[in-house]
Amino acid sequence: MDKFAYTPALPDGLNASATDAISPDGSPELGKQYVIPARQGRAIRLKKGQLLTILNPHGNQVCDFFAIVEGVPGEFLSMEHCRTALGRIYVGLGDILVTNRRRSLIEIVEDTSPGVHDILIACCDLPRYQQLGASEYHDNCADNFKMSLLAIDEQIIHVPSPFNIWMNIPVAASGEFEWKPPVSSPGDQIVLKAHEDCIVVMSACPQDMTPVNGLNSLPRELEFQIDET
Amino acid sequence: MDKFAYTPALPDGLNASATDAISPDGSPELGKQYVIPARQGRAIRLKKGQLLTILNPHGNQVCDFFAIVEGVPGEFLSMEHCRTALGRIYVGLGDILVTNRRRSLIEIVEDTSPGVHDILIACCDLPRYQQLGASEYHDNCADNFKMSLLAIDEQIIHVPSPFNIWMNIPVAASGEFEWKPPVSSPGDQIVLKAHEDCIVVMSACPQDMTPVNGLNSLPRELEFQIDET
Repeated sequence: MDKFAYTPALPDGLNASATDAISPDGSPELGKQYVIPARQGRAIRLKKGQLLTILNPHGNQVCDFFAIVEGVPGEFLSMEHCRTALGRIYVGLGDILVTNRRRSLIEIVEDTSPGVHDILIACCDLPRYQQLGASEYHDNCADNFKMSLLAIDEQIIHVPSPFNIWMNIPVAASGEFEWKPPVSSPGDQIVLKAHEDCIVVMSACPQDMTPVNGLNSLPRELEFQIDET
Repeated sequence: MDKFAYTPALPDGLNASATDAISPDGSPELGKQYVIPARQGRAIRLKKGQLLTILNPHGNQVCDFFAIVEGVPGEFLSMEHCRTALGRIYVGLGDILVTNRRRSLIEIVEDTSPGVHDILIACCDLPRYQQLGASEYHDNCADNFKMSLLAIDEQIIHVPSPFNIWMNIPVAASGEFEWKPPVSSPGDQIVLKAHEDCIVVMSACPQDMTPVNGLNSLPRELEFQIDET
């Protein structure tokens, strides 16, 4: 069993997500445009009422989005609780996403894309890439999540199922689904409003072994900025 | 924020799940039929290769099912990883359910019911019942999960989204779903095979404010037994 030993807070490998925080404690400068380099993650502290704009410069890039309630490490944005609250397996403009304690945390207040996002699929991790055929370490959203938190001296004991922004997983009436390229366009953006102080982690998904980040499977950067309401 | 303080391993209230373990460490007697009283949970240690038969005596009762890999507290049965592995939002006979490290853990080897189960919905918890109108403590599957583990001297730092056996959540083509009564019949049973040593927790769901446990909303007991392959 030793080869399967697993410490949830620690990544299986490293990239610059572990060192290149936007600031020592993740606090952003309001109105400044930040870049999440391709295949990396970043953690930011978002205050109640603030607006987070996430920009998809190339249109093909999925953003794995996580949020943890500030000061309550065991409470975070939870897709299984969101589905219950919404009564559906999709999200859309105006929806309020909730935590595993059923509290409102993130509201979708603007979305220039066609609104195709995913709330069903676990974030990619090293075992996923190994199953897809990777023989070496592969950047992944689970590790980006952990590293981004460690970079601002935070950690968590579980990797929640993320809000996969721009990820296109159409579900057929049979219940079967496919991994399709995003339908978003270059320059599309989504604006999220925080209902509580929280730590947000965004990962520019490094998936290059399925068409989730476009038919050419080329992960690209994302951009974001924080503003007051 | 104090009123929202949250310690994931501790329940919000108590019932007999916290004291009435099947044995001090949760090890079962093979071939013995055990009862999970209505509204309660039980934790059992299941060995690799063993078969767990869960019986629905009245046909209307949902079983919230969880499994944690023995000796790896951060690795457990994970519905979001199961959906990825299966490529669909439903499960059925012959499916192998996986952990958050993508390892095979639980196989559905027999199912006398029509096979309608849920892998989308979070287990009920106190905040859910409060939102439904409960003014006092209400038994719930999240607390049953935590108490059942504490009763055998185990605990966990996260409540996974459960495999909701016999829970009927039909999803329309629009993505919207309903909470419907089970379609199972009295005496239906499901047989699960462990692919690794694990701790299984089953909760006889105490939901009596929606028709999830039948139109009369009367939670009932479940039964189970363990056998060698």
